[in-house]
Amino acid sequence: MKAEVLSIGDELLIGQVINSNAAWIGEQLARIGISVGRMTTVGDSLDDILQAFERARSECAVVIVTGGLGPTHDDRTREAVLRFFNTGLRLDEDALTDIERFFAERKRPLSDRNRDQAMVPALARTLRNMRGTAPGYHISDDRGQFFVLPGVPTEMKGMMERDILPLLASAAPTPRAVITVLSTGIPESTLADTLEGIDTLLPDTAVAFLPSLHGVRLRLTATRDTADAARHAVDTLADFVLTRVGEHVYGRDTESMEQVLVALLRAQGKLLAVAESCTGGLITDRLTNVPGSSDCLERGVVAYSNRCKSDMLGVPPLLIAEHGAVSREVAEAMAEGVRLRAGTDIGISTTGVAGPSGGSDEKPVGLVWIGISSPDGTEARAFHFGTDRLTVKARAAQAALDAVRRLLLHLPLFSTQ
Amino acid sequence: MKAEVLSIGDELLIGQVINSNAAWIGEQLARIGISVGRMTTVGDSLDDILQAFERARSECAVVIVTGGLGPTHDDRTREAVLRFFNTGLRLDEDALTDIERFFAERKRPLSDRNRDQAMVPALARTLRNMRGTAPGYHISDDRGQFFVLPGVPTEMKGMMERDILPLLASAAPTPRAVITVLSTGIPESTLADTLEGIDTLLPDTAVAFLPSLHGVRLRLTATRDTADAARHAVDTLADFVLTRVGEHVYGRDTESMEQVLVALLRAQGKLLAVAESCTGGLITDRLTNVPGSSDCLERGVVAYSNRCKSDMLGVPPLLIAEHGAVSREVAEAMAEGVRLRAGTDIGISTTGVAGPSGGSDEKPVGLVWIGISSPDGTEARAFHFGTDRLTVKARAAQAALDAVRRLLLHLPLFSTQ
Repeated sequence: MKAEVLSIGDELLIGQVINSNAAWIGEQLARIGISVGRMTTVGDSLDDILQAFERARSECAVVIVTGGLGPTHDDRTREAVLRFFNTGLRLDEDALTDIERFFAERKRPLSDRNRDQAMVPALARTLRNMRGTAPGYHISDDRGQFFVLPGVPTEMKGMMERDILPLLASAAPTPRAVITVLSTGIPESTLADTLEGIDTLLPDTAVAFLPSLHGVRLRLTATRDTADAARHAVDTLADFVLTRVGEHVYGRDTESMEQVLVALLRAQGKLLAVAESCTGGLITDRLTNVPGSSDCLERGVVAYSNRCKSDMLGVPPLLIAEHGAVSREVAEAMAEGVRLRAGTDIGISTTGVAGPSGGSDEKPVGLVWIGISSPDGTEARAFHFGTDRLTVKARAAQAALDAVRRLLLHLPLFSTQ
Repeated sequence: MKAEVLSIGDELLIGQVINSNAAWIGEQLARIGISVGRMTTVGDSLDDILQAFERARSECAVVIVTGGLGPTHDDRTREAVLRFFNTGLRLDEDALTDIERFFAERKRPLSDRNRDQAMVPALARTLRNMRGTAPGYHISDDRGQFFVLPGVPTEMKGMMERDILPLLASAAPTPRAVITVLSTGIPESTLADTLEGIDTLLPDTAVAFLPSLHGVRLRLTATRDTADAARHAVDTLADFVLTRVGEHVYGRDTESMEQVLVALLRAQGKLLAVAESCTGGLITDRLTNVPGSSDCLERGVVAYSNRCKSDMLGVPPLLIAEHGAVSREVAEAMAEGVRLRAGTDIGISTTGVAGPSGGSDEKPVGLVWIGISSPDGTEARAFHFGTDRLTVKARAAQAALDAVRRLLLHLPLFSTQ
């Protein structure tokens, strides 16, 4: 079953908005076994939309359209649907109720423009919008399935998850299951060597290695006669991964390291304190993106100056003078210092050369020391994270968070690669 | 002059990679007066690529293709170019020299696969790749301009900026100039009211309001007979904006608030210290993304606990008990405390309810107090930033950074809206 994703909006063509909707839809469809053959973006022009509708319908059994359903005159998608399917408008009472409630909850007056969004193409089934005002449309006929959704990502995702993906999954010809296993601290090539044989373990399965700054994601896919059998097959692959590289696996699917870590810290009733130099606040920024992080993060210190390292973390100035701020000794003193001063169970630290300047032969750009301290002791390790400043920050933050995960799970504190 | 942007790669269709290339190219072309009529993404299939080539060429005078030029067998774009233009391969000596140097500089062995990338379509002019190994191709004929670029963003951007944009700009039928003026601290509707009349100030100009979490970007466009005249017209519009809402304008085009601020602090020789509660490190993370920030950022404190607010910032526990951690009094004490303890010229603070829980009728989710302190005094103001946790963090960080900008420029410390 082939699909086309059609995005509508001038703001996409002029680069004002990056088309993350299309990628998200592609990823979700791939998970249920539907291949996207093409993604197309056109502007808010009736002719261009109609031409794109015709082309998509003639080639793909599933067409998912997003954008152009808003209440202003720039939005032409509803009009295009009326013309393309040669249908009129009808009032959808449920949609009107949803729209009225949306405005009532926000204590905002309901305008005629918004009320008009409850007028939908007569032959379409409507898809409820729980997060905004424009309902979606679903038209099913002998040429296939045609869906029209708002361009606002949260509204589009709500309809996809609630209505469209379950419907398409049940209609997919070959049941497929997908798990993404999230690894970190092991390079792609080492991971591939260690997992040698996984691609021939079971028939009709696939393993994809997807590297990123936070580690390598492993996407495991299986197609079977039933959804249960497909699920069982990917579970077998995931178990194989855990057996071979378990200590490097921190989560699954859409989990983030910070979510995993906040859950672990809260479950164990542990408090964390963070002392960052080269990561500059990125570690605590990521942790505090997670609701409930205030239960387990006591404080963070961004110790960008040597004076601050001494004042707030108790790192002896002589230690810095002797070894330099980027050193095992200072990383350990920072981790232990922040832990003791904060009175927490765990302290973590980063100190490195983020670049682009400040490197030397002995301490090149990309060198980062990560320290971790608990009542059981304090350790640090040197990493080399490349030469791009933002890359160095991102990879160092991930490695530091991973060290805390390893401590909490009684694994070796640092990956051995 | 119409353009199509054609992106090639299975990784785009399955949502592994978000297509930021197409948006960037669309934005750059818009700046020089070329409209993108359509963006298309297809996978690494020869048939799909050839079909997309034909369609793009038949409708658009400019076609920009990215992706599929890598050294592995998945990459089919070069083969598609050979078939589509019915041409063979030739060795490009300059490309080979570039590739050899690329590997020599990285002390990595040069493989045959990479050497083969210097074999280019015989009728194409090559575009040098200063950041990778695959050269780009430029084919110009009576049907128009056809460009093929690598999919790696930095490599693609290098070729666009160095070769393609200057070439297309000089060939554009109508010279156009674009400036994006960056504003913050003023809502879109207020901005539109205050700038009333700007759209009729000069003929053949356009003003677009582009809201984001960091403020409203104003894109000013003018088309004229000459590039100089177009430039003069957008400068006139920009001056109009500065006259009306100058204090809200922090930068232009691709500048970020943190870049502007680091430049200002360094120019004035001022040191900053940051005390963050609800923003959780985002302020220092953004500042430390800027090279040279170590010259002007002395320290940051992420004071997530009340104990830390007292220990590290000197906020009296009684003050917190009396007014609550989210209050004018605590915001001011945090900003002054971090400034005095760090010995800096400026201290900035945030304390608020980021949500989703922790709100009350008196202090709802989204309430954020921002404090700023200098030898001239200490002030704080309350903001309401909505109910989504990441939105609250992003908007609060931007407002806090803007308060520092205002202090350095001797403007009122907080926007009056």
